[in-house]
Amino acid sequence: MKGGICPFCEGHESKTPPEILAYRPGENPKRDSAGWNLRVVPNKFPALGIEGQLDRQADGMFDKMSGIGAHEVVIETPNHGETLATMPVRRVEDVLWAFRDRILDLKQDHRFKYILVFKNHGEAAGASLEHPHSQIIALPILPKQAVEELEGAKRYFANKERCIYCDIIRQELEERIRVAAENQDFVTISPYAPRFPFETWILPKRHESAFENSPSHFYENLARMLRTILIKSIHVLDNPPYNLVLHTSPIQENTNDYYHWHLEIIPKLTKTAGFEWGTGFYINPTPPEEAAKFLREASVEELQPVQV
Amino acid sequence: MKGGICPFCEGHESKTPPEILAYRPGENPKRDSAGWNLRVVPNKFPALGIEGQLDRQADGMFDKMSGIGAHEVVIETPNHGETLATMPVRRVEDVLWAFRDRILDLKQDHRFKYILVFKNHGEAAGASLEHPHSQIIALPILPKQAVEELEGAKRYFANKERCIYCDIIRQELEERIRVAAENQDFVTISPYAPRFPFETWILPKRHESAFENSPSHFYENLARMLRTILIKSIHVLDNPPYNLVLHTSPIQENTNDYYHWHLEIIPKLTKTAGFEWGTGFYINPTPPEEAAKFLREASVEELQPVQV
Repeated sequence: MKGGICPFCEGHESKTPPEILAYRPGENPKRDSAGWNLRVVPNKFPALGIEGQLDRQADGMFDKMSGIGAHEVVIETPNHGETLATMPVRRVEDVLWAFRDRILDLKQDHRFKYILVFKNHGEAAGASLEHPHSQIIALPILPKQAVEELEGAKRYFANKERCIYCDIIRQELEERIRVAAENQDFVTISPYAPRFPFETWILPKRHESAFENSPSHFYENLARMLRTILIKSIHVLDNPPYNLVLHTSPIQENTNDYYHWHLEIIPKLTKTAGFEWGTGFYINPTPPEEAAKFLREASVEELQPVQV
Repeated sequence: MKGGICPFCEGHESKTPPEILAYRPGENPKRDSAGWNLRVVPNKFPALGIEGQLDRQADGMFDKMSGIGAHEVVIETPNHGETLATMPVRRVEDVLWAFRDRILDLKQDHRFKYILVFKNHGEAAGASLEHPHSQIIALPILPKQAVEELEGAKRYFANKERCIYCDIIRQELEERIRVAAENQDFVTISPYAPRFPFETWILPKRHESAFENSPSHFYENLARMLRTILIKSIHVLDNPPYNLVLHTSPIQENTNDYYHWHLEIIPKLTKTAGFEWGTGFYINPTPPEEAAKFLREASVEELQPVQV
């Protein structure tokens, strides 16, 4: 790595807050020491603090509340030069299991309403550290974005008694013009009218409302699918910076019929500017049918980790 | 300028589509020739096309419509090295009059529902040409962002029979902790809980629902205010890239009591990443009270145009 010591590299465990979770192969159960495949640690510069009560109050005509929440970092690999695209599938699967383990644990804190799992890859996508990592943020309120999606899905369900995502998947698998990849459990599509060039969504083919409640074999097949799409994207787009966001049901809700969890991957290829801020609409020069075709036809040839 | 001929510079009028509007001082009425202070031309690469009918249709389970609209460029100055911060106030005022003139003209086309006026300054803010310019886009539907603001303002008015922006202005002018600048007709605030560091809003102090219906003296005072805030921002933030967006009422609505037009200025200092895409919330490291204080205390010393 360039410039100084990476706090996420193996051997630098003391540079992070004490680990919350770690996957350690073999005979090394010692916390915060080397010999791990994956670690989850509190974010040293958290957006929200874990201590305290939810405090809501007026501030003149405005409203405010205390910034209570959890902000954790999933260090996906001990090796600085590896990525989700170059790691073995089994280790990508570990990352997904870590998401699930942390969601299940954070769900027990009844101050939280939603758990956001996301990843910023590359500086242009907002990653402040290069070492591969994801982030988990537990929020005391439902985010605006989730409310919009959940309410839209609820309205659709109220009209048709079908999940809108299940309908999308059925149509896309019939037409096959926006399908980028597929395996037993998952399909990746370039969604209709996407906001961004090469935006893709990975959806479980059968209805599942919450990521953490999915059956075990899903995680392996999601790992395969995610890795495949990342490899294809690198071949097509030359290692693009990207944001990956898990969209799932609120944690205080059990299984439901109307919302369908999925991963959204947004390569950072365009700039959000005045038009987008002013309208909430996005100008996208790449039709999803073309993006899907490029990805579908792209190589899945294995990539090598970078030497650092 | 670096690399080739700037199509917006004086003397290169033939490099743009024929002008829609121009302000020419003195004795030069000849269209598309040199000798202008400001030109408005169609965007050579428009996001929406002016010809055709609004065509709405289903596409399987999805909906689509034809991309009808207008996309114009306001070339704010003949001089490549000038900006709104270095131009004389009188010429900044011209830019605002051009916005008004074009809105009034585009309003007559009943296919349009909303006119978005915005500016991207600097490459990081999405400007593809360096020469100072703004953009005007007439849209056949109300943008999501406008709908959210208008509906929020309507709900507030339904509860209180007062404009929410008038209430904000009253509170901010009393407290004076988020006021960045003020003149006879306008106030600039760092809004409560802003999305971005140094985000500012310029609002007319008295209730006005639509930009184009404001009284004449408003444009001069808005020009002064805008220029002052841009100069202050440059002194504080070292010539930041920024997006400027006019928020105003839909064009098919006459004056109303609930919405209050204003300008929003967003310096591009942070990156929108996974958290923002996943939640619709924004992490902002700079409290608005601090940003307003910096701007309030910043120099208004004149800046010189760049020599090119």
